[in-house]
Amino acid sequence: MNTSSTQTPPTFLLEAALRIEESLDTWLGEVDLPSHLYDAAHYAVVNGGKRVRPALTLFCAEAAGGTMEQAMSAAIAVECIHCFSLVHDDLPAIDDDALRRGKPTLHIHAGEAMAVLAGDLLLPLAFTQIYEGTYSPEQQVELMKELALATRDMVIGQVYDTLGGLDSSLSPTECLELIHKNKTGSLIQCACVMGGICGNATAKQQNAITEFGEIAGLMFQIVDDLIDYQGDTAHVGKTTGKDAGAGKTTYPGTIGVEASKAAVFELQTRADAILQSLGEQGETLRSFNLWMAHRTR
Amino acid sequence: MNTSSTQTPPTFLLEAALRIEESLDTWLGEVDLPSHLYDAAHYAVVNGGKRVRPALTLFCAEAAGGTMEQAMSAAIAVECIHCFSLVHDDLPAIDDDALRRGKPTLHIHAGEAMAVLAGDLLLPLAFTQIYEGTYSPEQQVELMKELALATRDMVIGQVYDTLGGLDSSLSPTECLELIHKNKTGSLIQCACVMGGICGNATAKQQNAITEFGEIAGLMFQIVDDLIDYQGDTAHVGKTTGKDAGAGKTTYPGTIGVEASKAAVFELQTRADAILQSLGEQGETLRSFNLWMAHRTR
Repeated sequence: MNTSSTQTPPTFLLEAALRIEESLDTWLGEVDLPSHLYDAAHYAVVNGGKRVRPALTLFCAEAAGGTMEQAMSAAIAVECIHCFSLVHDDLPAIDDDALRRGKPTLHIHAGEAMAVLAGDLLLPLAFTQIYEGTYSPEQQVELMKELALATRDMVIGQVYDTLGGLDSSLSPTECLELIHKNKTGSLIQCACVMGGICGNATAKQQNAITEFGEIAGLMFQIVDDLIDYQGDTAHVGKTTGKDAGAGKTTYPGTIGVEASKAAVFELQTRADAILQSLGEQGETLRSFNLWMAHRTR
Repeated sequence: MNTSSTQTPPTFLLEAALRIEESLDTWLGEVDLPSHLYDAAHYAVVNGGKRVRPALTLFCAEAAGGTMEQAMSAAIAVECIHCFSLVHDDLPAIDDDALRRGKPTLHIHAGEAMAVLAGDLLLPLAFTQIYEGTYSPEQQVELMKELALATRDMVIGQVYDTLGGLDSSLSPTECLELIHKNKTGSLIQCACVMGGICGNATAKQQNAITEFGEIAGLMFQIVDDLIDYQGDTAHVGKTTGKDAGAGKTTYPGTIGVEASKAAVFELQTRADAILQSLGEQGETLRSFNLWMAHRTR
């Protein structure tokens, strides 16, 4: 596995992302939709994204002793929720973003009404994926619960980020953590937990995966902020420097670049230690954790 | 039960609506939300609506031999989905409506960003209601499936209604039916089916409830169109005559007022015949069916 280069994702991630992309494409083609709505949903979902969240679902299932195949429906569900959030967050009334993954955002591409409605569509479609997977009723209930709660928290995080409303007694760092724990961390942790459920994790394994997921979510956001702070738009594929420019609370802006980098190192190390308890079957997840700390886009 | 007056809802519906309103209010107060998001969600949900859909869930549970209490969580879930759809459909990019249930729409009241996000919030909250009810895992899976599919269809219906895209070979009546079957009928039928699931309906009862739900959905929309066509804004609580004015396809506009009224009578009679198979425990549902055919708001 190639994790030494920080410029390109390692082969195992590229392979997983390709499987996820193909599964998303096949699945969406089987949903009976009006053609323009299908086009909009396809544009929002099958877009060559990094697939960090669904990859976590697959790798966590494997780390629990299951197979990636078992976890694919849950992974698609997680990615649907992620794509829904991107489409709505980009809307003029919210972040007003014109560029996403190097392409015009959906409301630029297909109009605002379609962007609202295609986003709305992805949310119930995510839940249809839970019963379309080959999961027991108990697993489905757990998956539904995790997904519903993470989606709720994600919306709360977006509200804090866009409209404020945080307790004025909180410090800037506490505000930052509360925003990102909800907006980003929640779905990333959910992706991990859902993987564990699909892989029939034991209670001990599931605890490790849950703890890892929380750390991974925080680390992901700090790295994202660092990329936004330091990257250039062409490389990253979205408008960079925008968060800082818009006065949004970011880790480098709040605790500084060096402290942010140190936090990433500390989180990656801590996560790695947790993952060691999963043994050899957690190797891919450990490599992924390392890549997540070093990625540059 | 008072179903002779067509001006005010009958007592049993007012009582059910009150219980639903109180349940929605209590439940929402227990969700941990930032205060401005809570306010927006409360404004959208606890608003004195007619509660036709959740009432159907309660009455169908009872008609299957269960209790209204058993069905309340599912009823809340259905109403959350309905309220989410109202908030998003009213947005400037979609129907651009300023008035809803006699009050300013949410985006007028709390801004467009909050309206998008509060709508987004209600969707996952609906699914949290499914596992918060006291249902078996098998029931929860069935409820999730019904709710996810109905929400998907509702979005598809809104896309047809707002953005067109219907097969050009369809007749105006076929277009109308396809729009409303998805946009309105799907969630109304789902509300009934979910009630049956909560009430542990037998297969025979569930078939009757499903068939009734389909007819009720169509009848509801025709009556809605007639009210919009004939009503005045002050009585109805939303801008009337707007659908016809906006060139939207309506039943009175397509098949005429008299044919629409005849269709309502035919549907109500057909639905009543189906409900007779449920016996005495279906009495409230039968009265509700009668009221739905004669309501004027």
